[in-house]
Amino acid sequence: MKNKEITSREENFAAWYTDVIKKADLVDYSSMKGSMIIRPYGFAIWENMQKILDQEFKKLGHENIQMPMFIPESLLNREKEHVEGFAPEVAWVTYGGDEKLEERVCIRPTSETLFCEHYKKIIKSYRDLPKLYNQWCTIVRWEKTTRPFLRSREILWQEGHTMHATKEEAIEETLKMFKVYEDFQKNYLAMPVITGKKTEKEKFAGAEETYTIEAMMYDGVALQNGTSHYFGQGFAKAFGIEYLDKDNKLKTPYQTSWGVSTRMIGGLIMTHSDDNGLVLPPKIAPIKIIIIPIGSSDKLDTKVDELTNRLTQENITFKIDSSNKTPGFKFAEAEVKGYPLRIEIGARDLENDNITLVRRDTLEKVTISADIENIIKNINSLLKAMQEDMYNKALKRRNSMLHSAKDYDEFKQIAASKPGFIKINWCGNVDCENKIKEDTTLKSRCIIENEAVDGPCCVCKKDAKYKVYFGKQY
Amino acid sequence: MKNKEITSREENFAAWYTDVIKKADLVDYSSMKGSMIIRPYGFAIWENMQKILDQEFKKLGHENIQMPMFIPESLLNREKEHVEGFAPEVAWVTYGGDEKLEERVCIRPTSETLFCEHYKKIIKSYRDLPKLYNQWCTIVRWEKTTRPFLRSREILWQEGHTMHATKEEAIEETLKMFKVYEDFQKNYLAMPVITGKKTEKEKFAGAEETYTIEAMMYDGVALQNGTSHYFGQGFAKAFGIEYLDKDNKLKTPYQTSWGVSTRMIGGLIMTHSDDNGLVLPPKIAPIKIIIIPIGSSDKLDTKVDELTNRLTQENITFKIDSSNKTPGFKFAEAEVKGYPLRIEIGARDLENDNITLVRRDTLEKVTISADIENIIKNINSLLKAMQEDMYNKALKRRNSMLHSAKDYDEFKQIAASKPGFIKINWCGNVDCENKIKEDTTLKSRCIIENEAVDGPCCVCKKDAKYKVYFGKQY
Repeated sequence: MKNKEITSREENFAAWYTDVIKKADLVDYSSMKGSMIIRPYGFAIWENMQKILDQEFKKLGHENIQMPMFIPESLLNREKEHVEGFAPEVAWVTYGGDEKLEERVCIRPTSETLFCEHYKKIIKSYRDLPKLYNQWCTIVRWEKTTRPFLRSREILWQEGHTMHATKEEAIEETLKMFKVYEDFQKNYLAMPVITGKKTEKEKFAGAEETYTIEAMMYDGVALQNGTSHYFGQGFAKAFGIEYLDKDNKLKTPYQTSWGVSTRMIGGLIMTHSDDNGLVLPPKIAPIKIIIIPIGSSDKLDTKVDELTNRLTQENITFKIDSSNKTPGFKFAEAEVKGYPLRIEIGARDLENDNITLVRRDTLEKVTISADIENIIKNINSLLKAMQEDMYNKALKRRNSMLHSAKDYDEFKQIAASKPGFIKINWCGNVDCENKIKEDTTLKSRCIIENEAVDGPCCVCKKDAKYKVYFGKQY
Repeated sequence: MKNKEITSREENFAAWYTDVIKKADLVDYSSMKGSMIIRPYGFAIWENMQKILDQEFKKLGHENIQMPMFIPESLLNREKEHVEGFAPEVAWVTYGGDEKLEERVCIRPTSETLFCEHYKKIIKSYRDLPKLYNQWCTIVRWEKTTRPFLRSREILWQEGHTMHATKEEAIEETLKMFKVYEDFQKNYLAMPVITGKKTEKEKFAGAEETYTIEAMMYDGVALQNGTSHYFGQGFAKAFGIEYLDKDNKLKTPYQTSWGVSTRMIGGLIMTHSDDNGLVLPPKIAPIKIIIIPIGSSDKLDTKVDELTNRLTQENITFKIDSSNKTPGFKFAEAEVKGYPLRIEIGARDLENDNITLVRRDTLEKVTISADIENIIKNINSLLKAMQEDMYNKALKRRNSMLHSAKDYDEFKQIAASKPGFIKINWCGNVDCENKIKEDTTLKSRCIIENEAVDGPCCVCKKDAKYKVYFGKQY
């Protein structure tokens, strides 16, 4: 039974998305246009993401640091490509109280320039390398059109910035952190992702290589859900960062940066949720179990107490809905919120020593014996199955929307008729990339590694260099 | 032996403070004047503070939320006293990229207005109360003169904002969270604090009552180290927040807010640190043990391995300094960094089955048997003793700088000659408060609760209403 307050996903995907995040109390709007309020239930998802990733970063030797949120204009201007990439969309502070600032400062759209200025001061010797820093913070990009989690003027993210003695080490770091993101999205968010290098045109302003994680949403549109950049020595040279190596020579270090943001929450929703509301993979859900008592009896109260005690022991988060609403209303609300498992404990069912478990992803019900150890066993196996099944379901759907085109007519035909990504052979020339964008609005997603070309460029018919995915993007 | 690179605390307290935080790698400066870089070692202290407080807040039913960092000018203007208090020091964003904004927006100096706008939307019924929200974020106040951690243009803090059905409940919340701060500062930061209400003149812009935590620094100067505000219905009325009560009548809720910031790190340093560098209470120190191997032998390597394995098991954080520097240099560096315990493991001492432990606070050395269980036992008891001793030492010093003055001549004499706080009887009139400030630069710290007046107002000789502490402030 579909939730009537949520627009159907098939009917209007954009309206469905907005309905789901509003109904599930993930976000709200304020009079600050283009920014959003991340409400407690939405923020708890971000806190879970942060906790898992932060542990992983630290395990790999990274340290957290906090840079200023402001960048003086002269500092932002230090690296040419970088400032050209970001200046059009930064927010400028021009007044402090009633006083006009001598030099205006922008709010960080990203912090390369601040990190480089600091690295210039603290990196002197090979002994100071590597520097493995990370920052959790808010960045600002003054976007014209915004959508909660996907494109916002304020973005909560983390940005890793590292410096290394050698090119090899920096590339290793770029790929290592890229793998951390990929694994996190697969194993925790149950999101299948396509990974690869960005083209010259699409890479980060100032990077030598940008590795991207491309997730495909339910509607076939791409979400760039994390990037890891190899900077080479570009910024280091622009900022004059040098270290004295073991051989007593001054050398320029090699740099990386990598980031993921609250955008992942948007990806999560547009991958898994449905017409009844949010569907969250158990491993990232802030509350794993919703307990709904039905009717009343001493036996029921005792059972709920017993169960919640064991859940606390097992470190399984839960919530009890003991409000006065009808069971049907409570079920619908539990579905909107996307609690992975619903436990219905009915006074009458308990007489037969039964309770009911309902999985949020499939809405399948199982009635099982109300023995506490049996309930816990079933909870654990259902949560595990749900996590795996959600990934596999998303993978199957994603794969069904991966297309490939031999020539440009076929490309345009698929682009016009089928949602998803289209794989082509490509010569590497930006003109062909631009032509595709003009003709179809599709942009290159990433260059597919380890896949040989098997024909000429799909657009210009010249020799192809790469296999590339193209797709619409959020 | 005093560290030569640190200015003596007795000679120049301000220079000493700056030397300690720079030498210990807590902060650095950037070209963004008035902001600071919180370096990994400093940020790890903040992360520890956040972890402990966040757990405590959540245990008491609070939820984290994330509001926009911007406030449109019209929204800031909504509560009169509030805007008058903050407008002179806010940072204004006037341009997004090349486009001038239609309405300028400030960066939040605090978030009452944003919370109230949101509460207006989500509080409809008595069932929606209480709302217990907290936010960890950065706020901006465009201060003219800044000092790392104490007064900065960017402040990392948390701000709790809660709404309640009744006045009693809101006051209870104000005092409950105030107690959380007090306990945290006593039990974790080993800081003795004086608590009480702010005077009308000194309270928060828009509050009915402000409760303040006043810590006294080593130099006798006060640091306001946390506040909890009871707002009454002022903001709620300005924002038109109303709820339908059980009796079917529309009522206005009661509000609180409470916050602490990275300023606590400054307080920590100016309470405990010394001429050799940082001294950190064990419970808040990111790294509790520094292990310094001296000489080399297989036996030494084995012992260090054994010890670090056990420390990991025991969840005691540690670091090993196995660099090529001399032991003396390593000792000095360990003192600068303020690791609570130093373990010197000498190859020669190990032949006699001995190792040496050195407490950072007293620099006392003990030589003990190198048996691992014995080392762990000694570590645990020394860390515990150190935490307690640091509090007691700070308390003793603080108490020695609490003065009281019977009349205004005595007051001025103490103010001119002795650092610390001066207790007086006060009539409650702001003119007397202002006169003290003009004559001596001292400001009221707080009204002392549960202490009866025992004479006329120290300044005007009229009937006194309160006992109040005055002091210089950071």
